[in-house]
Amino acid sequence: MSDWSGLEVGYDVPALAGMALGDVQTPALVVDLDALERNLARMRAHAEAAGMRLRAHAKTHKSADIARLQMSKGGACGICCQKVSEAEAMVRAGISDILVTNEVRDPLKIDRLARLAKQARIIVCVDDPENIEPLSQAARRHGVTIEALVEIECGAGRCGIEPGPPAVRLALAVAAAEGLRFAGLQAYHGPAQHIADPVGRAAAIAAAADVTARTVLLLQDAGLDCDIVGGAGTGSFPFEARSGVYNELQCGSYVFMDADYERIRTEGGGRVGGFENALFVVASVMSLPAPGRAICDAGLKALAVDSGLPRVFDREGVRYAGASDEHGVLAIDGGVVAINERIRLVPGHCDPTCNLHDWIVAMRGETVETLWPVTARGKVF
Amino acid sequence: MSDWSGLEVGYDVPALAGMALGDVQTPALVVDLDALERNLARMRAHAEAAGMRLRAHAKTHKSADIARLQMSKGGACGICCQKVSEAEAMVRAGISDILVTNEVRDPLKIDRLARLAKQARIIVCVDDPENIEPLSQAARRHGVTIEALVEIECGAGRCGIEPGPPAVRLALAVAAAEGLRFAGLQAYHGPAQHIADPVGRAAAIAAAADVTARTVLLLQDAGLDCDIVGGAGTGSFPFEARSGVYNELQCGSYVFMDADYERIRTEGGGRVGGFENALFVVASVMSLPAPGRAICDAGLKALAVDSGLPRVFDREGVRYAGASDEHGVLAIDGGVVAINERIRLVPGHCDPTCNLHDWIVAMRGETVETLWPVTARGKVF
Repeated sequence: MSDWSGLEVGYDVPALAGMALGDVQTPALVVDLDALERNLARMRAHAEAAGMRLRAHAKTHKSADIARLQMSKGGACGICCQKVSEAEAMVRAGISDILVTNEVRDPLKIDRLARLAKQARIIVCVDDPENIEPLSQAARRHGVTIEALVEIECGAGRCGIEPGPPAVRLALAVAAAEGLRFAGLQAYHGPAQHIADPVGRAAAIAAAADVTARTVLLLQDAGLDCDIVGGAGTGSFPFEARSGVYNELQCGSYVFMDADYERIRTEGGGRVGGFENALFVVASVMSLPAPGRAICDAGLKALAVDSGLPRVFDREGVRYAGASDEHGVLAIDGGVVAINERIRLVPGHCDPTCNLHDWIVAMRGETVETLWPVTARGKVF
Repeated sequence: MSDWSGLEVGYDVPALAGMALGDVQTPALVVDLDALERNLARMRAHAEAAGMRLRAHAKTHKSADIARLQMSKGGACGICCQKVSEAEAMVRAGISDILVTNEVRDPLKIDRLARLAKQARIIVCVDDPENIEPLSQAARRHGVTIEALVEIECGAGRCGIEPGPPAVRLALAVAAAEGLRFAGLQAYHGPAQHIADPVGRAAAIAAAADVTARTVLLLQDAGLDCDIVGGAGTGSFPFEARSGVYNELQCGSYVFMDADYERIRTEGGGRVGGFENALFVVASVMSLPAPGRAICDAGLKALAVDSGLPRVFDREGVRYAGASDEHGVLAIDGGVVAINERIRLVPGHCDPTCNLHDWIVAMRGETVETLWPVTARGKVF
């Protein structure tokens, strides 16, 4: 673990190693290391029990330190990134096996991707035959091999080529292109992650697995094996795991959980995967202007609200009721809060919340153990 | 203007000086310099016509380069910041007159604020008598004077002490405290900025101006003059300007405009202040999976959606219909879009959108003129 204690609190960093929570400069992105480590062990056990590889999605945390933990302790074979710049940041931080779970079309971005393949295993998604020649040219120009997954539309309504014969034709073109290697299929169903009803979620993944399985068989008939059949997120992975079709899980949010994923339940009513809250935005109360209302220092610039307001953690009678740019309104029901009291907030959506912060304050119990830079923060291009 | 051309496109920066828009690595935060300069001139003229000072709010852009332009060309007497870390970043970038439009309660933050007052004029808000002694102690410890505005609740429902006698008692306590200087009143009505109906907006500001005027008179009776009576945002400033009560405008969004402020109209139906769109998130089309649907590369991590989805600028038949973390779904009505086509998006809310990006790509017409770092990006603590 790095020692950042030469940095100045406030201007450079929100905390220093050894600090208590009450001294952390807020709002701060705080990780509970014990909970994080338990989540890593849980996901490792799930993947091992299913006999599948885990390729953890780093878009959740954007932290090279957490990516390394996922690979060293958490059973991950590599990581996923969503953007070329995110992959660049991770490669420079020493990660050597990366799937970019996205299409890359801009000529300069394709060149950047090919250069990365000099230093790491790079896999990318394709969903259009027109993408093949530019990727192939860049690979040849830099003397590298870029691996490619054919992304199929499996119900998500975003990117992806039609499964079945169109996907097979695209895969054959990839396999024939110099500098490229056909590595398998990408079949991620994003919206299914957020279907609260487990029956509906199971049905969405069953439909995705069905078109994926048919495409895998057609590929075999065409002489192409899929090293990777990848997909699955934290909300749906038990269904992909039992499908018999997928062999690589791409879960990300499991390391932290968030208020949105808390609503996603198993058939038995429990939390998917048994994961616990490991990520908080810690806010401080900074004004008590009226009875029943307190103002804290965490608003839209510290918390992503696209999936709803944050949930107050482990503090009775306090509710986060509204966000402006730099303030949060707390509704106080009954009890009292004090000026400077720290309030732990479970973000509505962990991925874009992490992307707001430069530092993760990693705490062991009540003490700051270390700081982790959010390595790929803002690397969206 | 700085020359950043030693930086590597992609890993370090989204663009280099001299680039055309088609080569900019997207999503990128782009400023139209001609439009920005016209907005600066418009706001300067508005303030001069009203005979008021302008103290531009830097929380909108978090850029020291734009803050300097506001002070050199835009008629601003200084800037506002919202957080101590934001003020720290601006002081270190050479800005010397800063109002922190917020209460500062944490002991370490108060110490940081006092240290800043060694290098710049620092004004802060107070809304609680208990805040005075800690501020005074810190000012004495560092041998500085901290100026203070008494923030009054003028209808915004956030921070602020009750106007009238409670505010006067607080002001007298500030004036009596060693190391502090009473500088006036803060009376900002945030929600009024977003009342689309000009009549309702005028009524909200009239009510705020009324309680502010009464408090100013009571302060005069108590022997205290207000150097600053501050408030107003881009949506409401014409009303504060004509109130005869306020003397300092704190507008921020006028430099850029956003899709939310576009909905705020004057009595005549025009845009408030006549400001034009100067800020865009430029996205690229990266997948054409189905007729009528295109996928671009700008989602929740490139655009704040708290105030609604972005508006597509100057491109017929294309609508931004949905955002996921790193993708935007474009609904195509009629025409066609091409892979790698650049789409200019007007963000729903400019302040938290700027806070997502490390760099502003400053363009003159179709060419990148320079890059500006988002100096205080992430400085929320």
